[in-house]
Amino acid sequence: MVTDLAVDGASLRADVERTAAFGAVDAPEGRGRTALPGSEANGEAREYLVDRLRETGLEVRVDAVGNVAGRWTPPDADPDAAPVAAGSHLDSVPRGGIFDGVLGVYAALESVRAIKDSEATPTRPLEVVCFTGEEGTRFADGVLGSSVATGKRGVEATLALSDGDTTLEAALERIGYRGTGRLDASEWDAWLELHIEQTTRLGDAGVPVGVVSDIAGTTRAHVTVDGEADHSGTTGMAERTDALAAASEFVLEVERRAGATATTGSETAVGTVGRLDVEPGVVNVVPGSATLQLDVRSTAAGEIRRQIEAVRRLLDALEIERGVSTSFAADYTVDPTPLSERCRRIAAEAAGRSGIETRTVHSGAGHDTMQVADVTEAGLLFVASENGRSHSPRERADWNDCTAATTVLAESLCRLATADHPT
Amino acid sequence: MVTDLAVDGASLRADVERTAAFGAVDAPEGRGRTALPGSEANGEAREYLVDRLRETGLEVRVDAVGNVAGRWTPPDADPDAAPVAAGSHLDSVPRGGIFDGVLGVYAALESVRAIKDSEATPTRPLEVVCFTGEEGTRFADGVLGSSVATGKRGVEATLALSDGDTTLEAALERIGYRGTGRLDASEWDAWLELHIEQTTRLGDAGVPVGVVSDIAGTTRAHVTVDGEADHSGTTGMAERTDALAAASEFVLEVERRAGATATTGSETAVGTVGRLDVEPGVVNVVPGSATLQLDVRSTAAGEIRRQIEAVRRLLDALEIERGVSTSFAADYTVDPTPLSERCRRIAAEAAGRSGIETRTVHSGAGHDTMQVADVTEAGLLFVASENGRSHSPRERADWNDCTAATTVLAESLCRLATADHPT
Repeated sequence: MVTDLAVDGASLRADVERTAAFGAVDAPEGRGRTALPGSEANGEAREYLVDRLRETGLEVRVDAVGNVAGRWTPPDADPDAAPVAAGSHLDSVPRGGIFDGVLGVYAALESVRAIKDSEATPTRPLEVVCFTGEEGTRFADGVLGSSVATGKRGVEATLALSDGDTTLEAALERIGYRGTGRLDASEWDAWLELHIEQTTRLGDAGVPVGVVSDIAGTTRAHVTVDGEADHSGTTGMAERTDALAAASEFVLEVERRAGATATTGSETAVGTVGRLDVEPGVVNVVPGSATLQLDVRSTAAGEIRRQIEAVRRLLDALEIERGVSTSFAADYTVDPTPLSERCRRIAAEAAGRSGIETRTVHSGAGHDTMQVADVTEAGLLFVASENGRSHSPRERADWNDCTAATTVLAESLCRLATADHPT
Repeated sequence: MVTDLAVDGASLRADVERTAAFGAVDAPEGRGRTALPGSEANGEAREYLVDRLRETGLEVRVDAVGNVAGRWTPPDADPDAAPVAAGSHLDSVPRGGIFDGVLGVYAALESVRAIKDSEATPTRPLEVVCFTGEEGTRFADGVLGSSVATGKRGVEATLALSDGDTTLEAALERIGYRGTGRLDASEWDAWLELHIEQTTRLGDAGVPVGVVSDIAGTTRAHVTVDGEADHSGTTGMAERTDALAAASEFVLEVERRAGATATTGSETAVGTVGRLDVEPGVVNVVPGSATLQLDVRSTAAGEIRRQIEAVRRLLDALEIERGVSTSFAADYTVDPTPLSERCRRIAAEAAGRSGIETRTVHSGAGHDTMQVADVTEAGLLFVASENGRSHSPRERADWNDCTAATTVLAESLCRLATADHPT
């Protein structure tokens, strides 16, 4: 089966750029948008999407938490067959980039359009999906809509989530996207998402498209170190219990241990102390307490566990050696997610047939795909980032790479949706 | 000359405790007060002092910046002779202790009263002094009134200092302590201050009174470390420029270097990073920048200089090894202050004759005496702290130790003020 789908790169670009206008921010260094889930800008982006889905002849539905799906049932398809779905999200972080999420939604639409316009004869329905609230910037820590679509979060509890000011339900009602029912990802035969890479691996290698093997797991922890606040002039060095000095040892151990782990095993380990607050935080007072937030990731669960064990051992040692008291509370854990072998193989083959170079990479960041992978076969494609910048107006991808990646997506979806394709 | 002055410990305690009521704070753990310079509580404390000075027959004057002096000219004294002065301050930090400053003012008053009531025949006038704004909590970094009295700050510029809301002049006018003229410390023949020690050295040694040899110098600096803010999940360990990890090395080098210096030389070196702020300070972002405030002290100027040189070398190394950019700006420098040999000797002899044990100590904290020492012979006495707590309602001294220290102060002042005393 050779389809030679004609992906319209200009149309893809036009849709991404049109969406960039909703919530556009002033950003001399690039092009950015602020479209938090349920916001007016997010509503405008959704309206535009629904119009585009309908223009393309897709049957649109909106579920209770605002997930949008546009279905095309090909002439040769069994309408009751499990569909093949693709998509991403339209919400952004504050001052985010214009590709993150948006590219995946419109690449899915462009793929369906290309398949419709081709000689291909898919035997399964195809769905273009936009999940609600992928970014963790409002109402929850992220991957909100895909958590509902995979049954991990209940509809009612999710609608009741508050940003401190309003609920998700009220926000969705205001923009007209509090629909009915529940999009059920477990009914899909397969799922693919295209996303911009959030680092420079593909860009550095000059490879336009990545086929993701695994999404890293994440463990986050809240760490406290308590010492004794004392006068910095009158308290001798031997008499101190300096919480910041102890916390500094912790920061360096996190870095050292992740660095050592990253050079072995999965080579995907990272460890970060992103936040550190010191009390009382006054120039002439020895710090009395420090609170830290730790983020440890790897595609290998054992590497996360061993990093956590190592830094906890250091906290125990600091209690003995420095006399501080410490606490450690892991407050967020997502297991590593290996992606579907079938999806990976089909994507790699499709790229090969189209003469598009790909590379196998892992994803250090979470995506809706990591939820969907728990209930059906799921794959994730990356398009190269020109500079690795993410969640920033500086985020940028080459439009030709976007077209190439969308071609791989379209060819893969077409094969996944075609019964006679030897899988 | 044996005077055997009778210091009234009960009167001293009553004055300190009465002053503790002005701005008293609720503090289950001890007894505290908030009396920022120029505040209503500070005004009440001043009123009480002026009443007590007048009751004791002293001639009171208030200078333009609110410094208060009460003079007693003994019958045998030349009214034009350079006086001997003693005192401290009545302002406090927020939730400060009841001894800090207050004890020194009333110990001076109690000393003059004891001398007046004795057979002693001082030949110089004696002055009891309360300086404005010793604590650096409002209008300036501290030692405000003594800086004016020693000519280091101009009267007009000082009156114009603002706390962001009001000027010192307006605050002093409101409480009735915007006086006239300028108290001139250079006209004093000698100066003594009694203060509660702000660490546990005397308390640990079971010695009630310390004779201070030197006041440590201080250099403070504002340090910045700039790296690159990146996604903590997608940025590999080898690709990072983590500002917090670099800053952590700096914190530990400050501690290590001060610790090493403290075991040699003057044994008074300390180094502290009291403040560290991280940007953006988000759990899933590699820190892009860190700002730190450094405080380095010693009684030996060379030890301060060498500590600063060492940590600046580390910043240079961090630029090379970690790729961060750094800045270092020393924004506050006070040289170490050796105190008057004559004052120290007289105090030690006076204590010896009264059977009061003393120990020679240094002061790690700044005091008004460090200003006065630049214009006349100045001495500083410490009374033991029971627990080393300072700037806290937990601050505590034994009342018997206070009486002993005031006896040393009184005997020393009497000798300093008596012409036939062989100095």
